[in-house]
Amino acid sequence: MTAPWEAYLSEHETDYLEQFLEFLRIPSVSTDPAQAGEVRRAGEWLAARLRQAGMDRVEILETGGHPVVYAERLRVPGKPTVLVYGHFDVQPADPLELWTSPPFEPAVRDGRVYARGASDMKGSDLLPIFACEALLSTGAELPVNVKFMYEGEEEIGSPSLPRFIAEHKDLLACDLVLCADGGVGPKDAPAVNVGRRGLCGLEIQVTSAGTDLHSGGAGGMAPNAIHALVHILDAMRDEVGRILVPGFYDEVRPLTEQDKAEIAAVPFHPDAYKRSIGIKDFFGEPEFTPQERNVARPTLEVNGIWGGYQGAGVKTVIPREAHAKITCRLVPDQRPEVIRERLIQFIHQVAPGSVEVRVTPLPGEADPYLLPLDHPGLLALEKAVTAVSERPPVRVRGGGTVPVTGIFQRELGAETVTLGASAGQEGAHAPNEFVRLENFYRIQRAFCILFETLGETPLCGRA
Amino acid sequence: MTAPWEAYLSEHETDYLEQFLEFLRIPSVSTDPAQAGEVRRAGEWLAARLRQAGMDRVEILETGGHPVVYAERLRVPGKPTVLVYGHFDVQPADPLELWTSPPFEPAVRDGRVYARGASDMKGSDLLPIFACEALLSTGAELPVNVKFMYEGEEEIGSPSLPRFIAEHKDLLACDLVLCADGGVGPKDAPAVNVGRRGLCGLEIQVTSAGTDLHSGGAGGMAPNAIHALVHILDAMRDEVGRILVPGFYDEVRPLTEQDKAEIAAVPFHPDAYKRSIGIKDFFGEPEFTPQERNVARPTLEVNGIWGGYQGAGVKTVIPREAHAKITCRLVPDQRPEVIRERLIQFIHQVAPGSVEVRVTPLPGEADPYLLPLDHPGLLALEKAVTAVSERPPVRVRGGGTVPVTGIFQRELGAETVTLGASAGQEGAHAPNEFVRLENFYRIQRAFCILFETLGETPLCGRA
Repeated sequence: MTAPWEAYLSEHETDYLEQFLEFLRIPSVSTDPAQAGEVRRAGEWLAARLRQAGMDRVEILETGGHPVVYAERLRVPGKPTVLVYGHFDVQPADPLELWTSPPFEPAVRDGRVYARGASDMKGSDLLPIFACEALLSTGAELPVNVKFMYEGEEEIGSPSLPRFIAEHKDLLACDLVLCADGGVGPKDAPAVNVGRRGLCGLEIQVTSAGTDLHSGGAGGMAPNAIHALVHILDAMRDEVGRILVPGFYDEVRPLTEQDKAEIAAVPFHPDAYKRSIGIKDFFGEPEFTPQERNVARPTLEVNGIWGGYQGAGVKTVIPREAHAKITCRLVPDQRPEVIRERLIQFIHQVAPGSVEVRVTPLPGEADPYLLPLDHPGLLALEKAVTAVSERPPVRVRGGGTVPVTGIFQRELGAETVTLGASAGQEGAHAPNEFVRLENFYRIQRAFCILFETLGETPLCGRA
Repeated sequence: MTAPWEAYLSEHETDYLEQFLEFLRIPSVSTDPAQAGEVRRAGEWLAARLRQAGMDRVEILETGGHPVVYAERLRVPGKPTVLVYGHFDVQPADPLELWTSPPFEPAVRDGRVYARGASDMKGSDLLPIFACEALLSTGAELPVNVKFMYEGEEEIGSPSLPRFIAEHKDLLACDLVLCADGGVGPKDAPAVNVGRRGLCGLEIQVTSAGTDLHSGGAGGMAPNAIHALVHILDAMRDEVGRILVPGFYDEVRPLTEQDKAEIAAVPFHPDAYKRSIGIKDFFGEPEFTPQERNVARPTLEVNGIWGGYQGAGVKTVIPREAHAKITCRLVPDQRPEVIRERLIQFIHQVAPGSVEVRVTPLPGEADPYLLPLDHPGLLALEKAVTAVSERPPVRVRGGGTVPVTGIFQRELGAETVTLGASAGQEGAHAPNEFVRLENFYRIQRAFCILFETLGETPLCGRA
């Protein structure tokens, strides 16, 4: 018993792969001001593709930053309205020398597509579009009303989005958000996401002198910006990774026995995982398991550091400036603005008096998110994922951040379920990012089933 | 009573300044492999200038690294032989944006010459050459036998020089080394150098994973190379700057009351100095004065640090690699190879077990040096400096390193006195390096007097 859209998707596998590769070739790096035109070009490419798929209204909407692509087809009154969310921007590709093939020249090897954005998330952007096109190919109407909202700033923390959503509540009104940024795991170990961590970040600048100094001439007399910075950073975590900033853990929900059981139920192969990322051993609070730390405990990481001489050979300088970027992943019920202020206070408290310290909040603060576990949208998602997998999915909390989930909840009153082609450990934010073609094709089908199931689900008016 | 050479120097002030500016335009940055040709060009320029000044033999000698320029005029048997030492390489000029005028386009402003190498030490290279030319202009022979040895690797720690000197003992044999790398202070507060600190350095590389990781996907599970590095570096010094590496101070000569008195006798204006380098306060071991720490105590400084994302905006990465360069200034009787091994042992001892640490010694290890305080060469220098200053010089120990002094002592049995145009605090190794024209002209005269005085000094056979 093959659904009519099933045949359509099979016929178009080659076409859809070629379109995916074309989309990947656009270097839409949102953090790099020089690539702003490419981010917009990626949005325009998506808009054209949405129009071609049968959307009634497609628009590029300005945000003050990178634009939003909006589309809709609202032809089934009385049926739920689903808002698909995605992003068409990508992380920077550096360090370039570690890529086997160039990040913006997608390469298909061993059933995988390698490129920056392959996993996060240009493939997943296309799947709900292909699904709508396939459903419409049967001649019938879509089973639900659909809206699409794709942004171009997710990888820089969606700075324009809170205001954009608040200012477009009517346009975006919906019964459920369908987030395509994420995945449902491999076919033999499916999983649906029920939570995400939040985020806050800071940049620290330490200044110790008016100029770089000669370590002979001034050595023994002058403070050193790098020494002061490493002192501040080392004070933030103990040797096993516990965060020492006072109050950092105050609002963290203690893990219940049920939480621990659900986290432990998620398939995880410690040795294979360690090998895959090349670490000697797991690292972090020893009173929690690695999986608990990854999804239900907050973290603090230095993402970058620089100061003084980085060239070849020796330069006997006492550097006047040193810099670091840090970000924290947050869990319920931490709030980014509260954690940020505690971090700033701590930094100034431990900073040596001999230097000046300037702390700047980074964009992209986001609340942590947990989906109510009895939500009918979640049950519909689980049905769709089961249909394209070898067994029913487990429920997992994710370690990453999708800032918009908290914003959709606050502004639109809508909960968010997640469906996409990413299967994790695919080099997102790192060299040699890839996505598996099997998932790219399989999840197109899951989207069709999900739209059909939601058409029969009493969601209207929950919002 | 004006010496005949005095008139000659006065007549040539403009010529000599123009030649100095021409020499400064050669970007002879020895640490940058791309500038190797410029380093050689600077050496060739000097060789031509030595020939023009009347040297009988001038040669460019290969070392395996940057070349050495050798010259000699040995026409007064029975008189002392003086070996002039200098270097024609310079420090890198970055950060370029902090220069008021470009580093290799010398600018004369307010009686100063601004350029990379102005103070350290292209001006001082020329002064003994000009002095010989002026002395010969009278028609008489030079009062001493002179040899010149200028190297092109001082700013990278003179890696080729120990072997070069050991292999050219006969060529370089002398009764006294006259080091032009340094200065004798301003006219109203002259000072002669009687000691230098030694040097050793290391580069540290920390590796925590096989690839950069997503701080959402792997956060809470994986070690972070930057956190490990800042832990290692912060463990090296306490909060007031004492070095915590076991055994670091074991061989340091305790300061006697006389040492302290001599150091305190050197003119020093704490507030003006702090303002000139833009520091809030002095920093370092509180049981010593800033001047004691600068010349008679060893130091450990991080010269550069880098790892992870350094671009604009946010990148939520757990970096797999982090790097730092550190150097130590050493004092009698510390030995660089001993201190280096203690540092390496300490680094591996404090490094978290979750990461791999690789430590590489940097080139340029050098012994500390102290001149015997009754040496006739020192007395001759003091006479020459007194003649061009408003009062007799004080004796000072320098905080910097001139690796060759220890090598000359070991290989040639010759002690070293120092005379040059640098007056300190002139931005050596930093942006906006400069030298004062007053010293450039005044010290030409000091060289003439020193050569004349050494001609009457019983130095022969001391070596």
